[in-house]
Amino acid sequence: MSDIITFRQATAADVPAIVTLLADDPLGARREGDPGDARYLAAFARIDADPHDELIVADHDGEVVGTMQLTYLAGLSRLGAERCQIEAVRVAASARGRGLGRRMIQWAVDRARARGCAMVQLTSDKSRTDAHRFYDSLGFAASHEGYKLSLS
Amino acid sequence: MSDIITFRQATAADVPAIVTLLADDPLGARREGDPGDARYLAAFARIDADPHDELIVADHDGEVVGTMQLTYLAGLSRLGAERCQIEAVRVAASARGRGLGRRMIQWAVDRARARGCAMVQLTSDKSRTDAHRFYDSLGFAASHEGYKLSLS
Repeated sequence: MSDIITFRQATAADVPAIVTLLADDPLGARREGDPGDARYLAAFARIDADPHDELIVADHDGEVVGTMQLTYLAGLSRLGAERCQIEAVRVAASARGRGLGRRMIQWAVDRARARGCAMVQLTSDKSRTDAHRFYDSLGFAASHEGYKLSLS
Repeated sequence: MSDIITFRQATAADVPAIVTLLADDPLGARREGDPGDARYLAAFARIDADPHDELIVADHDGEVVGTMQLTYLAGLSRLGAERCQIEAVRVAASARGRGLGRRMIQWAVDRARARGCAMVQLTSDKSRTDAHRFYDSLGFAASHEGYKLSLS
């Protein structure tokens, strides 16, 4: 595998590959469906149409080897500062161990800073202890409890 | 104080009162400015124009006694399910101890469920132990670490 990986906005054609990455995970496997399900395309269309939402893929010779979603949140707090929220970070099994995840998050942080965001935020399941060491090493502080209430 | 508190969408005229609530807090006091700062109104305008974002106030006889922001997040995960994120929850000191915070969060959860959201999520600073008991009692699970990286 060469090192030529580019980060770009996802297109509708990338959706099945992204869903496959989301499902290739101990937690994600339990909650995803057929990558061709029309509901995934509908969600993509909404993200794609929203100027404050970006679905990003890491592309290696046309293959999707990583993905993350960046949402730029408005809020009154901190003098009306925008925050960048990172969700759904995944690196393909075939591309792990080469620092791609680190490059992705650093790219997201740089993008948020260039946009003028005051903060980058994300949550990580408490069972993902490897991910916690990773985010700690990137300068993130685990300052908050992340609460979820499932409605389904 | 009567019990007649209504929840409604905030208007531009509510912005100074909301900022005052955000600042009336051990953590918020350090990071807010003049409630009349134009940047607050600009942030409000963006929220108000976004069909996936709602700034809510609890109104008691025309006085803002509580606030929270609800953002409906798109994502491919979980078959493209929408999630409701709650941010910037505050109850006025004059209105505390009467269950208003509980009513606000329950209202938000009902609203998210009616909209078809698969999940409600929020983060709470680890120093806010009273808030953690409150969210625990409402059925939320502190299943995630909440990471923040300040860029300012």
